Amino acid sequence: MLDDKILNYFKKHEEGYISGEELSRELGITRAAVWKHIENLREEGYSIEAFPHLGYKIISIPDRLTEVELKWQLKTDIIAGKIYSYKETDSTNNTAYNLAIHGEKEGSIVIAESQTAGRGRMGRKWVSPKSKGAYFSVILRPDILPKEVSGITLLSALSVAKTIREMADLAAFIKWPNDVLINSQKVCGILTEMNAETDKINFVIIGIGININTKKELLPKGATSIMEEYGAEISRVDIVRGIFKNLDKYYKLFGSGHIGRIIKEYKEFSNFLGTRVQVAYHNTKIEGYAVDVDKDGALILRMDSGLNERVLAGDVTMLR
Amino acid sequence: MLDDKILNYFKKHEEGYISGEELSRELGITRAAVWKHIENLREEGYSIEAFPHLGYKIISIPDRLTEVELKWQLKTDIIAGKIYSYKETDSTNNTAYNLAIHGEKEGSIVIAESQTAGRGRMGRKWVSPKSKGAYFSVILRPDILPKEVSGITLLSALSVAKTIREMADLAAFIKWPNDVLINSQKVCGILTEMNAETDKINFVIIGIGININTKKELLPKGATSIMEEYGAEISRVDIVRGIFKNLDKYYKLFGSGHIGRIIKEYKEFSNFLGTRVQVAYHNTKIEGYAVDVDKDGALILRMDSGLNERVLAGDVTMLR
Repeated sequence: MLDDKILNYFKKHEEGYISGEELSRELGITRAAVWKHIENLREEGYSIEAFPHLGYKIISIPDRLTEVELKWQLKTDIIAGKIYSYKETDSTNNTAYNLAIHGEKEGSIVIAESQTAGRGRMGRKWVSPKSKGAYFSVILRPDILPKEVSGITLLSALSVAKTIREMADLAAFIKWPNDVLINSQKVCGILTEMNAETDKINFVIIGIGININTKKELLPKGATSIMEEYGAEISRVDIVRGIFKNLDKYYKLFGSGHIGRIIKEYKEFSNFLGTRVQVAYHNTKIEGYAVDVDKDGALILRMDSGLNERVLAGDVTMLR
Repeated sequence: MLDDKILNYFKKHEEGYISGEELSRELGITRAAVWKHIENLREEGYSIEAFPHLGYKIISIPDRLTEVELKWQLKTDIIAGKIYSYKETDSTNNTAYNLAIHGEKEGSIVIAESQTAGRGRMGRKWVSPKSKGAYFSVILRPDILPKEVSGITLLSALSVAKTIREMADLAAFIKWPNDVLINSQKVCGILTEMNAETDKINFVIIGIGININTKKELLPKGATSIMEEYGAEISRVDIVRGIFKNLDKYYKLFGSGHIGRIIKEYKEFSNFLGTRVQVAYHNTKIEGYAVDVDKDGALILRMDSGLNERVLAGDVTMLR
């Protein structure tokens, strides 16, 4: 896309001014076309000024989740090789699933600034208000068995929690299996879906919904955003890029067999270990002390009987 | 569809003759339309004769895998509530997957007389020559975890092997996990695919490709058909209906927690137990004596070291 080419050209010459003539020559388009694309970019939120005798200069960039902004100088090996960016979609997981079915490469991202039918775990809804959060899905093609996919769920939660700590210095914690909380309120949910044979995964879609600059009144009860906890707006582009980098790092670790190290870091980010929890699954509820997460991603509960129970699925509530 | 309504009307009055006038009145269409639909059915292979003063009578029906023929007096609770029948499709699993994504009910079947892009396990091709085999996919929505799906693979193989024994009295055996063999040659392959979250299956597609009246020269090396082993053609409709009935029975057993009984019957149909086998998975091969299949569907190998190994995936070759 020409708009993107112009942006990338500006980005490569960040200090200086670029004349319409130069852009016209470099991109092989007319001066009138250059002007039209500059107008497009202004409408997208880029503040571009024209200085007589000097040329155009980008004064400020919008915090928009576009491929150009997200990929700018992003150094990853697997994640975000390609980014499909939408202002709105029904569900980024649906869009990504459709791409993956038709052969989309590992690492590709579908991202949207809002979703009209965002989905959460176990068929639940995920509220995705316009323009202040980030909702994205990552296509992965790990060479593992379906039963091993929980490792990817864990490393995704770890990547998000770690990014929030790194970028906003907030005490983000993980609640098993994959909610990310700040001050006991949910800031990020992850929905892992897969398409698999009995003994071979075709692809996995990790859907990540993260409340970044979302106002609390737009969110369901028990949810918060990074802005609400941090006290100020924070760059969505920076947060999402940070998550891409961490996902890239931990997914490579996972692929090279270092699940043990991932689980170790995951546990350091967990606030449920050592506490008494209730786990609800379908119509059953069990209670016990959460004592560990094993290498299969199962939650180990110490029951009142003194015996340990391995929990593979369910919703955790921490009891006081 | 009117053709189907006419067929069902004939089937309800199997002994007698039905006049064009009666059909016209019962179906609310003109005599000319009745005649046109009778012609359609003749083109489909139904031999329908018109007797003066008596009416039409079906003299013989074709061995066609249509919804009307397959469902006629079929008594099942879950399987084949609805049948989508095609002369040809790319892959019945693809068609079924697409239906399931859009909410198709549990038990629905997609069946075709040939496939242009039939798929087997592990990304392999499944040769589906025209008009003599049966290729169908079953949509299931079991309330289980992804790791439990192997039970469905096992019960599917059991259903096919048992049907072949019941209908053709041939010694059909199962090779772990889900090939069905007669005289050590493959007569049926099963491809189980699923769409799942980490802790919830959305749906499972069981794809069954079975060589019924297929000539050996049309099949890959090592494959056979029921006809080749039986010595004569056999009704495809009967075989497929038989599989539907057994699937219905074993899937209900599975749903009510009787996996133990399914595994027991599965083992009775297995010819690999007690033999020395090689299991290939990706680039690794291991050898040992196949001693058991456990309740998770894993193959238990006794290694030369004397220790047992649990095998979750791979291709088995029996060694002599």
